[in-house]
Amino acid sequence: MTAGYRIAVDAMGGDHGPRVTVLAAIDALSRHPDLEILLFGQQSSLEPFLARHPDNLIQRLHLVHADSVVAMDERPSFALRRRRDSSMYMALEAVAKGEAQACISAGNTGALMAMGRTCLQTLPGIDRPAITTAIPTLKGHSYMLDLGANVDCSSEHLLQFAIMGSVMLQAVEQISQPTVGLLNIGAEEIKGNEQVRLASRLLSEEPGLNYVGFIEGDGVFSGKVDLVVCDGFVGNIALKSSEGLARLMSRKVRRSFSQSLYRRLLAFLARPILKELQEQLDPSRRNGASLLGLQGIVVKSHGGANRKCFGHAIDQAISEVEMNIPALISDHLEQHLPRSGSVQN
Amino acid sequence: MTAGYRIAVDAMGGDHGPRVTVLAAIDALSRHPDLEILLFGQQSSLEPFLARHPDNLIQRLHLVHADSVVAMDERPSFALRRRRDSSMYMALEAVAKGEAQACISAGNTGALMAMGRTCLQTLPGIDRPAITTAIPTLKGHSYMLDLGANVDCSSEHLLQFAIMGSVMLQAVEQISQPTVGLLNIGAEEIKGNEQVRLASRLLSEEPGLNYVGFIEGDGVFSGKVDLVVCDGFVGNIALKSSEGLARLMSRKVRRSFSQSLYRRLLAFLARPILKELQEQLDPSRRNGASLLGLQGIVVKSHGGANRKCFGHAIDQAISEVEMNIPALISDHLEQHLPRSGSVQN
Repeated sequence: MTAGYRIAVDAMGGDHGPRVTVLAAIDALSRHPDLEILLFGQQSSLEPFLARHPDNLIQRLHLVHADSVVAMDERPSFALRRRRDSSMYMALEAVAKGEAQACISAGNTGALMAMGRTCLQTLPGIDRPAITTAIPTLKGHSYMLDLGANVDCSSEHLLQFAIMGSVMLQAVEQISQPTVGLLNIGAEEIKGNEQVRLASRLLSEEPGLNYVGFIEGDGVFSGKVDLVVCDGFVGNIALKSSEGLARLMSRKVRRSFSQSLYRRLLAFLARPILKELQEQLDPSRRNGASLLGLQGIVVKSHGGANRKCFGHAIDQAISEVEMNIPALISDHLEQHLPRSGSVQN
Repeated sequence: MTAGYRIAVDAMGGDHGPRVTVLAAIDALSRHPDLEILLFGQQSSLEPFLARHPDNLIQRLHLVHADSVVAMDERPSFALRRRRDSSMYMALEAVAKGEAQACISAGNTGALMAMGRTCLQTLPGIDRPAITTAIPTLKGHSYMLDLGANVDCSSEHLLQFAIMGSVMLQAVEQISQPTVGLLNIGAEEIKGNEQVRLASRLLSEEPGLNYVGFIEGDGVFSGKVDLVVCDGFVGNIALKSSEGLARLMSRKVRRSFSQSLYRRLLAFLARPILKELQEQLDPSRRNGASLLGLQGIVVKSHGGANRKCFGHAIDQAISEVEMNIPALISDHLEQHLPRSGSVQN
């Protein structure tokens, strides 16, 4: 169903660079017969990975040379000033110019945000883009935002996140009234800091938002709400801490099951179950975080993504193109936001 | 080894109240032959649980009637003004008056903090108490603070937390130079908000502190550092989110292992392993969070603690009495802190 889509891929981003991004791009071309991919990166780094693929795929892959690369630890402001010739910037620019309909990068998140804002601009009524992704829950999955893009958010920003996330869920998950919860240290109204208490009032007054109140950290994975709203600092740490605990549990399971011959036999017998569990909880299945609030589609892949995971991020970008998420958010904002106006950053 | 200790227990706190606290207190008396417990609560609520226990235990249990109870959702400022006759306040007051050497409560955390500050005062050089607890890691366990007491912390507060936690670890875990990490959204120096960047500078300049830099959320459970420092809002949400994910994983495991007769048989055979894992990861084994920074020992039990868990909190209070943690922190502060002075709240 990818009729004539063109996607820009920053081939230099991520821990593994072209080895992952180029091969994942070629996989995507074989999955989507009408897809074209613009591949941005240093020609000499990309070319080794382009050999020995079928012509019908390579024909739809257009290499665009970029002189520089945004390093993972580069300050966003520095990258914005000095890396206009980078694969990341050029991929975003391709979207801004209409040469591609979406951009995917596994690179420096802060730089991607800053460059995304510069190249694509935020939607009217939105001050800052936010990063959102699906998270597993007891009932299936929910979404959470922001996840690390914005470290100091005002209550108004949290409101904007709630609106954007809500509209995206209506489209992606086809939930007509997604429930929205605000992450806090207690469910009672008196809990938390000024920022979340004020945000709670704004969210409850916002028409068209199905706000259910505060949720605590342990509610994130319970599926109690469809959308968890929080500032980027808290969201990033909550998600990464949880990933850390999940890793701890997996290792303890593996260690426990290898302590004796009998236990190793049991582990062998239980292998299909353990594998199934691993797949259910595998974060790579949900790789691909969306930058919401820009006048264009940008998907951030996990830096450590492998070929398959990066492919998920590409597929996610394609489905956002199909649904035209930025236009949906923009339409909603036009109907609802003008009265609240814009906020200073 | 509990020579002549007296402990004050707020018997009304927690989700289960006296049913848990009174019986856990009696268990503790039988574990520690020289322990005495002052039990604060409504006489009529406590008495039903005091019947039919051996005399040698009941003799060391002193019921002190308290007219009121701090509700779980009461605002700390309200509780402080209106609940001076509550079991929580009176238990803290017993420590302040020297009638008991430590106080344990499973009640409203915010109220316990506020009342603790009023009754016991903070140590010179400390503006706010912080809550810390042990968390499981790949290598054993680490500690984390603050966990929900302080929702808006300055960099100076984070420094104070680091010092208090570090001194506590030296005593409790006998690590001479505990490694300290500051929780942030990236390991690079440029990451995070003003608060953590400034705190990082303060921590690195502090003599006697083994500060190793920023750690990300996924480093919390890796055991990379002995002590994780963060503000209470972030710490509370990180810990509770992780607990939520752990619960999700356990349920998925259980669901997976019950899908067929064969799988149920495997689960039966693997039961000792699953039980062992559950015990290793059971948060109740580590129940008991310390309020550091007060001129007295206060241990907060999980609100949902059962009899066994509440017993762990009592034992933790006893071991803090044995080590005299507040005096150790105070000594360290006298040697190191005068130059940095005190900070306004």
